[in-house]
Amino acid sequence: MTKRNLETNAAGHLTFGGCDTVALAEKYGTPLYVMDGDQIESNMQTCMQAMAQHFASYKVFYASKAMITKAICKMAKKNGLHLDVVSGGELYVALQAGFPGERISMHGNVKTPQELEMALTNHVTLVADSLDELGDIEAMAQKLGMRAKVMLRITPGIEAHTHEYIQTGTYDCKFAVGIVDGQAMQGIKTIIASNEMDFMGIHCHIGSQILSDEPYDPAGVRMAEFALEVEKETGVRVPEIVMGGGFGIHYAGDEIPKPISAYIQKMADGLNRVYQKAGVPVPTISIEPGRRIVGEAGLTLYTIYTRKEKPGIRTFVSVDGGMADNPRVTLYQAEYEAVLAARPLAPAEETVRLSGRCCESGDVLIYDLQMPVAHKGEVLAVFATGAYNFSMASNYNKLPVPPVVLVSKGRDALMVRGQSLADMVRLDEVPAWVEED
Amino acid sequence: MTKRNLETNAAGHLTFGGCDTVALAEKYGTPLYVMDGDQIESNMQTCMQAMAQHFASYKVFYASKAMITKAICKMAKKNGLHLDVVSGGELYVALQAGFPGERISMHGNVKTPQELEMALTNHVTLVADSLDELGDIEAMAQKLGMRAKVMLRITPGIEAHTHEYIQTGTYDCKFAVGIVDGQAMQGIKTIIASNEMDFMGIHCHIGSQILSDEPYDPAGVRMAEFALEVEKETGVRVPEIVMGGGFGIHYAGDEIPKPISAYIQKMADGLNRVYQKAGVPVPTISIEPGRRIVGEAGLTLYTIYTRKEKPGIRTFVSVDGGMADNPRVTLYQAEYEAVLAARPLAPAEETVRLSGRCCESGDVLIYDLQMPVAHKGEVLAVFATGAYNFSMASNYNKLPVPPVVLVSKGRDALMVRGQSLADMVRLDEVPAWVEED
Repeated sequence: MTKRNLETNAAGHLTFGGCDTVALAEKYGTPLYVMDGDQIESNMQTCMQAMAQHFASYKVFYASKAMITKAICKMAKKNGLHLDVVSGGELYVALQAGFPGERISMHGNVKTPQELEMALTNHVTLVADSLDELGDIEAMAQKLGMRAKVMLRITPGIEAHTHEYIQTGTYDCKFAVGIVDGQAMQGIKTIIASNEMDFMGIHCHIGSQILSDEPYDPAGVRMAEFALEVEKETGVRVPEIVMGGGFGIHYAGDEIPKPISAYIQKMADGLNRVYQKAGVPVPTISIEPGRRIVGEAGLTLYTIYTRKEKPGIRTFVSVDGGMADNPRVTLYQAEYEAVLAARPLAPAEETVRLSGRCCESGDVLIYDLQMPVAHKGEVLAVFATGAYNFSMASNYNKLPVPPVVLVSKGRDALMVRGQSLADMVRLDEVPAWVEED
Repeated sequence: MTKRNLETNAAGHLTFGGCDTVALAEKYGTPLYVMDGDQIESNMQTCMQAMAQHFASYKVFYASKAMITKAICKMAKKNGLHLDVVSGGELYVALQAGFPGERISMHGNVKTPQELEMALTNHVTLVADSLDELGDIEAMAQKLGMRAKVMLRITPGIEAHTHEYIQTGTYDCKFAVGIVDGQAMQGIKTIIASNEMDFMGIHCHIGSQILSDEPYDPAGVRMAEFALEVEKETGVRVPEIVMGGGFGIHYAGDEIPKPISAYIQKMADGLNRVYQKAGVPVPTISIEPGRRIVGEAGLTLYTIYTRKEKPGIRTFVSVDGGMADNPRVTLYQAEYEAVLAARPLAPAEETVRLSGRCCESGDVLIYDLQMPVAHKGEVLAVFATGAYNFSMASNYNKLPVPPVVLVSKGRDALMVRGQSLADMVRLDEVPAWVEED
């Protein structure tokens, strides 16, 4: 069974954010995304405090691609965070929520002219991902008669793989420009020399769902060394180093990540060592947690439907959701844990394949779930679905995107209304000639 | 370069459905899904004609999960097809399009009570996927005071893998009930014995994107043999055998599927051999093409943005779409072909990695695309995106779902309007306590 701490109420039901999950399923229907606002804010604060312990000047950017709603943007703002967006759509949500553009950075390997204009007019910092893009930014700034705040995303040569890392001179990935091939320095010189761009710093991102804190020390070293090289070669101070995100969460089994303070400690060790040795004050240091803020703060409730015993093979138990609301299993072979909402502590009686409802053999939510024998209609809670579930949800099989409920101290309220059947076809049109034929 | 037949106009531009693809991109913006209605209808007719050649009674079900809009449902209706849906959402679209419920079958390993009610009240045939489900259907029919038309999905013991197939007694898959373990016969007896259910036939589906016609002969044999076993054991005629879909399409390279007539020929060979030997007339035979109807009838237009040369590694070319509008590459390592819309016949000058714009290293559309050196802003056409692209599209990275344009004989019209930024947050709510805090 799961190793996570489960909270239950007097009825023995699983609670989340102080709310009875069985009652939530009853009230809102299933599938249902549930997000614990208190956990979200507490995770935000934990990151802020860990950074404050090590750096005189720091920023915590919430990486909104993990899960963005207006309410989450408001929580980020209230807790003093900055925001990282990767598209005009994410920027739009943030601005709608009243998030100040000055506290937003825009990432991504493609930024359309519309997105550049939207970013610049809202005083958003652009994290340039290629030399090519610098020309686009310059042109747009010129057109708008504005100066662009620009960082450059670079490849530090540290690549993390969950538990370990490799030092690599190259990086076969669409993102960032390399230090070793000279493009990073070239890009920074271009920014500094430009009349339309202000050089705001350097950025890196060494991986995702990293469980070990180890890689952050060498990454810090490499970024600090490069920042000092830049200062030496250009005479211009690197005002900010963004160390990216990648801090893992607990999905299932024994893969337990380090506390956020450990990751920040390692990062600070690496950065501070280099700056201390050079006798230069450390600039603003920033991180970009996304999954770490919202991942474990979310769960998904499903209703159990069909049970199928295939003699000599296995038992399949199917629920009313699947890859349309959580594509991470089919995409990344992600592992999850689940319990029955009404009796989360009941001992396991069998191992089943928990299947989604999409018409696709690969739509499985948990390959081998140890659980009690469930009754049809029982509610199942799948943990750690707060990141990249709602944000990647589709209407595959014309399944409506489920509602998202925010819970906090026993209160519950819709954060995103569920789609209706009509919502899914409101943009559908029938060309006149199809009607006529 | 691509082996498909490209149509061009006087300007040398790629045309699709008689429309200039460069002009379509200009008019509707990119990313843009383009569907050729004439190809869709011609594919529908090809399937109908192939079936008519071999079977006195037959049905062609369009498997709408591949791509469903009201206009496509209308085309299916006009061309005499039936429709297969896998959810209340797909059924809703079909009914909105005026598709008669009597000509619809509902599939899926989970059918909620709401979906069962919707199906029964609209006279939809239910393809039961488990013994468990039969009880639910019976109960709902009783509640509504209606009789349910029920087929049973069974495992024929033939499993196709693109080029070949295996005969397997078991089938480790969430779908269907087995012949070998006796559950198929048991299920059929349950349907026949029920006062609430009418036995409509048996159903199988042996795989997806199958390039060889070979597996359809043994699948036909196995289904016919089992149908005759059913008749012998129950004295009840099996009125319909649905042979499912799985007919492959041409995505890229040398993987060219057989003509639809070849698949149907093999299927007929297998089925007819068994029925002839038994001296029994062949019942209604049905197929369920989805991808085969719409896959090659669709393409996606993108605009080329950043170019990034990583010395000694490779060149990355990024476009303004990606896994949000086409998740099949990340999901299944699917392969696609692409050309520049304005100069589709220009010789290749380099091999690049065509990257999507989502903030994820894995968001690649084509791993090794041989193409001319493209200019920023050029339009790129990716072929064979008509199936499982729009239907699986998400708002990942808060990218709006692109519009779908239907083209036919030089005409173009929106079949699905593109999402606006506001559309993506119209269901977003801010719980009162978040505003207050």
